[in-house]
Amino acid sequence: MFGCWPCRTEYDRGVNTFSPEGRLFQVEYAIEAIKLGSTAIGLKTKEGVVLAVEKRITSPLLEPGSVEKIMEIDEHIGCAMSGLIADARTLVEHARVETQNHRFSYGEPMTVESTTQALCDLALRFGEGDEESMSRPFGVSLLIAGHDENGPSLYYTDPSGTFWQCNAKAIGSGSEGADSSLQEQYNKDLTLQEAETIALSILKQVMEEKVTPNNVDIAKVATTYHLYTPSEVEAVISRL
Amino acid sequence: MFGCWPCRTEYDRGVNTFSPEGRLFQVEYAIEAIKLGSTAIGLKTKEGVVLAVEKRITSPLLEPGSVEKIMEIDEHIGCAMSGLIADARTLVEHARVETQNHRFSYGEPMTVESTTQALCDLALRFGEGDEESMSRPFGVSLLIAGHDENGPSLYYTDPSGTFWQCNAKAIGSGSEGADSSLQEQYNKDLTLQEAETIALSILKQVMEEKVTPNNVDIAKVATTYHLYTPSEVEAVISRL
Amino acid sequence: MFGCWPCRTEYDRGVNTFSPEGRLFQVEYAIEAIKLGSTAIGLKTKEGVVLAVEKRITSPLLEPGSVEKIMEIDEHIGCAMSGLIADARTLVEHARVETQNHRFSYGEPMTVESTTQALCDLALRFGEGDEESMSRPFGVSLLIAGHDENGPSLYYTDPSGTFWQCNAKAIGSGSEGADSSLQEQYNKDLTLQEAETIALSILKQVMEEKVTPNNVDIAKVATTYHLYTPSEVEAVISRL
Amino acid sequence: MFGCWPCRTEYDRGVNTFSPEGRLFQVEYAIEAIKLGSTAIGLKTKEGVVLAVEKRITSPLLEPGSVEKIMEIDEHIGCAMSGLIADARTLVEHARVETQNHRFSYGEPMTVESTTQALCDLALRFGEGDEESMSRPFGVSLLIAGHDENGPSLYYTDPSGTFWQCNAKAIGSGSEGADSSLQEQYNKDLTLQEAETIALSILKQVMEEKVTPNNVDIAKVATTYHLYTPSEVEAVISRL
Amino acid sequence: MFGCWPCRTEYDRGVNTFSPEGRLFQVEYAIEAIKLGSTAIGLKTKEGVVLAVEKRITSPLLEPGSVEKIMEIDEHIGCAMSGLIADARTLVEHARVETQNHRFSYGEPMTVESTTQALCDLALRFGEGDEESMSRPFGVSLLIAGHDENGPSLYYTDPSGTFWQCNAKAIGSGSEGADSSLQEQYNKDLTLQEAETIALSILKQVMEEKVTPNNVDIAKVATTYHLYTPSEVEAVISRL
Amino acid sequence: MFGCWPCRTEYDRGVNTFSPEGRLFQVEYAIEAIKLGSTAIGLKTKEGVVLAVEKRITSPLLEPGSVEKIMEIDEHIGCAMSGLIADARTLVEHARVETQNHRFSYGEPMTVESTTQALCDLALRFGEGDEESMSRPFGVSLLIAGHDENGPSLYYTDPSGTFWQCNAKAIGSGSEGADSSLQEQYNKDLTLQEAETIALSILKQVMEEKVTPNNVDIAKVATTYHLYTPSEVEAVISRL
Amino acid sequence: MFGCWPCRTEYDRGVNTFSPEGRLFQVEYAIEAIKLGSTAIGLKTKEGVVLAVEKRITSPLLEPGSVEKIMEIDEHIGCAMSGLIADARTLVEHARVETQNHRFSYGEPMTVESTTQALCDLALRFGEGDEESMSRPFGVSLLIAGHDENGPSLYYTDPSGTFWQCNAKAIGSGSEGADSSLQEQYNKDLTLQEAETIALSILKQVMEEKVTPNNVDIAKVATTYHLYTPSEVEAVISRL
Repeated sequence: MFGCWPCRTEYDRGVNTFSPEGRLFQVEYAIEAIKLGSTAIGLKTKEGVVLAVEKRITSPLLEPGSVEKIMEIDEHIGCAMSGLIADARTLVEHARVETQNHRFSYGEPMTVESTTQALCDLALRFGEGDEESMSRPFGVSLLIAGHDENGPSLYYTDPSGTFWQCNAKAIGSGSEGADSSLQEQYNKDLTLQEAETIALSILKQVMEEKVTPNNVDIAKVATTYHLYTPSEVEAVISRL
Repeated sequence: MFGCWPCRTEYDRGVNTFSPEGRLFQVEYAIEAIKLGSTAIGLKTKEGVVLAVEKRITSPLLEPGSVEKIMEIDEHIGCAMSGLIADARTLVEHARVETQNHRFSYGEPMTVESTTQALCDLALRFGEGDEESMSRPFGVSLLIAGHDENGPSLYYTDPSGTFWQCNAKAIGSGSEGADSSLQEQYNKDLTLQEAETIALSILKQVMEEKVTPNNVDIAKVATTYHLYTPSEVEAVISRL
Repeated sequence: MFGCWPCRTEYDRGVNTFSPEGRLFQVEYAIEAIKLGSTAIGLKTKEGVVLAVEKRITSPLLEPGSVEKIMEIDEHIGCAMSGLIADARTLVEHARVETQNHRFSYGEPMTVESTTQALCDLALRFGEGDEESMSRPFGVSLLIAGHDENGPSLYYTDPSGTFWQCNAKAIGSGSEGADSSLQEQYNKDLTLQEAETIALSILKQVMEEKVTPNNVDIAKVATTYHLYTPSEVEAVISRL
Repeated sequence: MFGCWPCRTEYDRGVNTFSPEGRLFQVEYAIEAIKLGSTAIGLKTKEGVVLAVEKRITSPLLEPGSVEKIMEIDEHIGCAMSGLIADARTLVEHARVETQNHRFSYGEPMTVESTTQALCDLALRFGEGDEESMSRPFGVSLLIAGHDENGPSLYYTDPSGTFWQCNAKAIGSGSEGADSSLQEQYNKDLTLQEAETIALSILKQVMEEKVTPNNVDIAKVATTYHLYTPSEVEAVISRL
Repeated sequence: MFGCWPCRTEYDRGVNTFSPEGRLFQVEYAIEAIKLGSTAIGLKTKEGVVLAVEKRITSPLLEPGSVEKIMEIDEHIGCAMSGLIADARTLVEHARVETQNHRFSYGEPMTVESTTQALCDLALRFGEGDEESMSRPFGVSLLIAGHDENGPSLYYTDPSGTFWQCNAKAIGSGSEGADSSLQEQYNKDLTLQEAETIALSILKQVMEEKVTPNNVDIAKVATTYHLYTPSEVEAVISRL
Repeated sequence: MFGCWPCRTEYDRGVNTFSPEGRLFQVEYAIEAIKLGSTAIGLKTKEGVVLAVEKRITSPLLEPGSVEKIMEIDEHIGCAMSGLIADARTLVEHARVETQNHRFSYGEPMTVESTTQALCDLALRFGEGDEESMSRPFGVSLLIAGHDENGPSLYYTDPSGTFWQCNAKAIGSGSEGADSSLQEQYNKDLTLQEAETIALSILKQVMEEKVTPNNVDIAKVATTYHLYTPSEVEAVISRL
Repeated sequence: MFGCWPCRTEYDRGVNTFSPEGRLFQVEYAIEAIKLGSTAIGLKTKEGVVLAVEKRITSPLLEPGSVEKIMEIDEHIGCAMSGLIADARTLVEHARVETQNHRFSYGEPMTVESTTQALCDLALRFGEGDEESMSRPFGVSLLIAGHDENGPSLYYTDPSGTFWQCNAKAIGSGSEGADSSLQEQYNKDLTLQEAETIALSILKQVMEEKVTPNNVDIAKVATTYHLYTPSEVEAVISRL
């Protein structure tokens, strides 16, 4: 007798259904997509949050500046991403609309947690067939850095629509090693400058190539979002 | 001849259909998802209801306060959860809207049973394709604690949309052992303080780590919902 | 050659389609769900109808009063159920709306047969994809007891949406033995009190546990629906 | 090589599609459902039409009067059925609405043929997904007896939505033998009383149990529909 | 390796899709349905068109007059059919509405070609899911006879929605032999009476039973549609 | 291990999806349908465009004039077709509406290229489920001949919705041989009369039967569309 | 045991779902479609962007000018394509509408990046079932050349809806070799004329046929889009 033992392939076709062990395979497969992605790192300090990402420049003919892996959501929120970039753009665009609507309706910025929740609500509803949702999970993880009335904060989201608040977090193909290093090096009293140095030195360990202003991006959210210029990146590199 | 004996994998694809033995496998698989979840415990006393949950802090870099496994529904109702947190958030958000609408329409709080019924109506209708329902069962169990004109009450819901009223109940990966302990230690004349101590001492037995204010949460609904501060949790721990 | 003989598993996926032998398997599987349910018994007398059900209290920590297996539909109609309780609640809720609408539109109570027909219309239309229907058969049988201008009546419904009028009927896991006993003991001249005794004594035979006011419920519809208090149940038990 | 020869199971899943031999299997399977049903017989005479059905009373506790296998459609039309009774009720209810609408719109009764056509239009459109149709064929055959400006008439419908006008016809599990007997015994000059006797004597041959007023129903449409009372049935039995 | 060679059964499930050889199997299977049908014959003369059909009277208890295989579409158009009669009724009903609408909108009869095109447009769109179309091909072929400003004409339609104009054509189980005979016997100068005789004599060859006014129907469209009375049919028979 | 190697049959069921090699099988299968069709030829000259088609008259009883394989789209555009005629009729009807709308909106004829593009837009969107599109590719190729402000032009479309402008082109079962002959015989300075002769002589080579005015059609678009009368066709034949 | 190992064919049927390794196969298969396409090359210089494409003229009877592989989007944007031309036309048409709407709403041209993003938003949403999206990925890659307030720019898009900004890029069947040559020969100080020569010389290497004005197209966007005339192409060829 065959075709009868609980086996993976049977459960994938219903995009959003449980396997016999209570697992959601499409979500797990989307998480695999992220393990193929480039590495991104976030660190929260009292002075603000630092984001640093590896940019894979597959050809010298690509414009490094057009490979965007850190994006602004609102003037007080930015995010780094790993996984499918086109999916990330959709989530970021959704968050931008939400934060703009919030400013318009309430005359004040949306909190970082509400923004993250709004992103995850969209991510959770994949396979529902309604207008805004996708027919599959979003194949991307985000590190969302922001500053609001509660001070600086860093959130981590995954394709299941779950999110966690973190002091520091790495995502992407080098996340395992990077997370270990973060646990060793992180403490709550880091200055923003120290955080920059730690983020980039850890990124350097997991990257195969030499770190240059062309193949990494750094951003911070002190009170507002700022993407580092090549010379600002160069300055951090020089401190390593 | 094959492909013909009644076998599990055939019945999973229709998300919400019976197997030849009269079983709904997707619901059973969702229940498996909960067995993978962290443990939560509820106890009802004459003075109010106590909820206690284990928080799995997978990394020292996570903010313990952002791992929410006990949430407020309305000022007189709270709930503890085990299973998929993103699913629980959807149910809790639905219940919050229902209780607010009820207050607005009738000028009085919704009863705990009606609130629980509203939650379960949504859970039952998975796979129906309408706007509010999910394409799969909600992979979460809730312990709903509340206080209304009938005094304190504790409800337990499962992914099938069924609910029961209980004096005490444990859910999640440690529920089997915890339920046995509850049956031994529970009596109707417990004070709220005794209930706190029992809940936490049972949680301690099923947790692999040492209990700290970082990895457990406690809440009570005496007449209103209250989530314990770290120092209030510390006080309960010190009584063990 | 294989995959070609008429075999069960092929016909289950179309939720509501015939097998080569002219059978509707999903309905038959739903009937299996009921065979797993607790036993319920109904008896019609000239003075009214008696309903008695077994309540499976799986844990001493459950509130017996919250395990409802007999419910009021309208003041002149009640029902006992066996199978999936969440499904039964949906059917009962539908019937309550129908009977209230009827009272509002016509200024008089709905007949017991029309109420039963309304319930079965909903049950029949599973798999149709419209708003009120389910994507699978309702996994529940009901014994509907009522009193109207034609006097007392008892109806039995199954998941196919078919109903029969009965003098006495048992449903659930112990129905086979209970039906035999009913045929032996039933006669049309029973008093309501004699019917109570017969119902409970038969229930006692098919239950594994000792009968107590905690694990059975009794209701009657003389002219109006009445659910017995624990002491009224105790009184019937004492007559056995 | 397998999975490739034309074989039955492949064609069932598309509910309403042709097999390579030009057959519609779901319709054929529905016809099988009718072969499992109780026997019904119709005879047309110049004085009117007689319908007679077997009622399977599976338990002495069932109310024989609640097992309806002959139903009134309009005051000049009635029908006998074999197969799934819940399906028949839906068709009859549809026909009742059609005939009432016709009376309201045109101030005169609908002809028997138009009523039959309306029933069959609904039956034909199974699997179309629109509001009134079913997701599978209706598992029922009807003998429709009526009287209109063309005098008495008898129609026979099957699950494909096809209908035929007949002088006499049997449906259900005993139809093969009953049809042979009808061909032998039928002639156009029968009186209504002779038709009653023939119908019941043929029914008696195909029934396993002794014929009683409890397990058969008889109706006639002379100019209007009339369901026989138990004593009227008894009178026919006594003539056998 | 198996399950991989191009094989028939794979292409049937998409109701309206091409096989690797560029074939539409559901249409071909529907054409098989027609090969099981009774034979129908049409002949065009300068004086008008003759239609003749075999009626399979499966039981002496059927009313021959209720087996309609020739139907009027409009007063200047009629059609003979072979295949599923219930499908033909739907097409004819559609054509009746179209021709009536045309008369109402333009004050003149619809041409025979436009009527045929309207029928075929409906037939072509099977499997599209819109309101008027079927979920499978119509399992019927029609011979459409009419008279308009271009004089008499005869069209032949098949389940693919294709139509051809013919001088003479046979459809159904006996069509192969009948078409050969038609080619031998047809010429453009036939009188209508000669056409009647040829049609019936060919029908006689392919029928297993003796031809009687009970088991054949004849109609003509000279300028208007006329279905022959039994005595008119008898007159043609007598000329054979 | 089986059922796993990339194999054709797996990719057909999604009507419009890529195979692992980047192919769209339904489009390729539709192209196979055209290879079964009759041959059609188009030639562009400075004086206008000539279209010539083979008509397969499968029975001497068919009206040759009713087998239309060249149709007018607008007074300045005509087309020849090979493949499923009913599909071609739908495309042509769509193009007729588009060109009429264009005349109405802009007061001038639609260009030949825009008309071709409109046809192909409809062809491309098969399987999309919207109102105008089909559930499968259109199984037809067209040669579209027209004359507009840019002078005469000839377009060739295939089932994928792609089109090319040509000087000469053959489609259908004899297209391979006919295309070779066209390449040998075509030059840009042909007169329209020479083009007629070449088209028909090539058609003659690929047809199995003798060419007669009954089994070929010829049309030209000099400035306007003109379908040749039988005597005009006879005249071309006589020149061969 | 079989049918259970993760294997490709299982994941293709859900058009837009992840495989266990986190891959989207339909997108990867669409990329295969492009590898079958003709080669296209783009180079950005300070003076503007050059696009050059191979045109496969499969028959001498095709009009070379009607094989369009470089198209204008707006007066400041053009694109070269490789893959399915009908798909490219849909994307280009969408971009044309977007850029026109932008000009109308804001009174200024749309930036090249926004135009590219709009194209990719449509590409990303395949399989969603909404009105504008396709049921499969668009089987085409584009090189988008433009000039706006940021000067000249060149974008490359793939079927996943991702885009990159490039200095130079090749797509299609010869892209691998062409990209290597581009990396060797590209520098930022090229003049537009040097870029023309490099593009065409690389195209020449990967083409099987001799380069002529008939089988290549060249376009530039200095400040505005310009498609080279045959003599302008001839001039570039003469420089090789």
